[in-house]
Amino acid sequence: MQNNHLISIVGAGPGDPELLTIRALRRIEEANVILYDALHGDEILELAAPVCRKIYAGKHYQDGQHQTERQDNIHRQLKEFALAGNKVVRLKAGDPFIFGRGAEELEFCLSEGLQVEVVPGITAGLAAATCFHIPVTLRGVNSMALFYTGHKRDGGFDDIEVVASVLNTHAPVMVYMGLKSLAYLSDELRNRGVSPEIPLQIVSRVGHPDQQIFTTNLGEVAEFLTRNDPPMPSMIILGSHARKLG
Amino acid sequence: MQNNHLISIVGAGPGDPELLTIRALRRIEEANVILYDALHGDEILELAAPVCRKIYAGKHYQDGQHQTERQDNIHRQLKEFALAGNKVVRLKAGDPFIFGRGAEELEFCLSEGLQVEVVPGITAGLAAATCFHIPVTLRGVNSMALFYTGHKRDGGFDDIEVVASVLNTHAPVMVYMGLKSLAYLSDELRNRGVSPEIPLQIVSRVGHPDQQIFTTNLGEVAEFLTRNDPPMPSMIILGSHARKLG
Repeated sequence: MQNNHLISIVGAGPGDPELLTIRALRRIEEANVILYDALHGDEILELAAPVCRKIYAGKHYQDGQHQTERQDNIHRQLKEFALAGNKVVRLKAGDPFIFGRGAEELEFCLSEGLQVEVVPGITAGLAAATCFHIPVTLRGVNSMALFYTGHKRDGGFDDIEVVASVLNTHAPVMVYMGLKSLAYLSDELRNRGVSPEIPLQIVSRVGHPDQQIFTTNLGEVAEFLTRNDPPMPSMIILGSHARKLG
Repeated sequence: MQNNHLISIVGAGPGDPELLTIRALRRIEEANVILYDALHGDEILELAAPVCRKIYAGKHYQDGQHQTERQDNIHRQLKEFALAGNKVVRLKAGDPFIFGRGAEELEFCLSEGLQVEVVPGITAGLAAATCFHIPVTLRGVNSMALFYTGHKRDGGFDDIEVVASVLNTHAPVMVYMGLKSLAYLSDELRNRGVSPEIPLQIVSRVGHPDQQIFTTNLGEVAEFLTRNDPPMPSMIILGSHARKLG
């Protein structure tokens, strides 16, 4: 497919360059400018042309800058680089539409009348499941899977009752950005009737050579975390367990 | 990464060859045998070597064969081809772990002691969302997204109350294989307090040149379907709406 877009919001997948889509690879190779977040590895950026400008736009991007200010700055750069005639890639970990703020950046570009496309990526939850053989759906067992951000807001979790009800149907929940608050999440779920026995997998640094899996259950995870310190980024998968690696 | 596996259970994504991952492409190119389901397009199979055996293993694979029998037959073939020293690719639409029975085939291979890997793919729900600019998560609006099979079992939908509760948090639900029962699903959800006003998108043949989107809402979809006949396969996205295409 011919790329007539000035701005491509591209999902980079979990970090392993082999888990890029072919379209994502092409967009990276063609880019004049790449605005990237923390990708936890440089291999993907090295796929860009030597003349491509690579600009870090992730957290701690500029000291003292607030989140909204940082996001506005990204929008401003997307627009300026595109209007100057560049092929701009906005590179995001995982999939742009799963907890990646891709939708916010898309809406900005559309509101400014900029030619924009979104290129999907392998989201970290599914990469973690496949790399460590953790089934997401099983015929006759579960008919759904929930993707959830474990990032607390205003001191609590959003819609925690719904998360509990999904787990109670024997379906899995993939928790993004949830490691810091995991002991608290475990309490909140058990307080809503979720069994302490349900399996809990922490998949660290999925898609990287040092990826690893930590296995416990909902009732024991708080104690587990006093003895273990899974490296970031981590995906948490509740309600399904890893099968023996072949 | 060196491929020492005899069997690769590979997600082919939604159908567009550019939405294959690089690893999936390599496995297809290296395969001696590919067991494939209906992929709704031959372009992906044409990426295999000319000498590769391509065997259809999808529905209507053999007249009068039951589902369990068909699945057993796939397992038997995976084992026989692998033990004969072939590089076997089991190619599945979308992601093998999202309503694709990849987990069942993985468990068979592991139980037989066969060297097996799973390669993730872009699942149809996320492909539909990105191709048609339908946000899945929006900061400050929703903290979850549900993947659900709209395939009825024993005459009803599984866990429909949970689906309703997800929609009532303003989070989207991506419904797989739900087109045939969509009018009934709409009734069931409205009977559980979901607003008839929530947006409903039917994305037909995502990832193919003739992909298209149909837009309605939960309350009007039954009437809509008497006037429109969206081509299969279709993804249904409830609770989020398509933004203007750039």
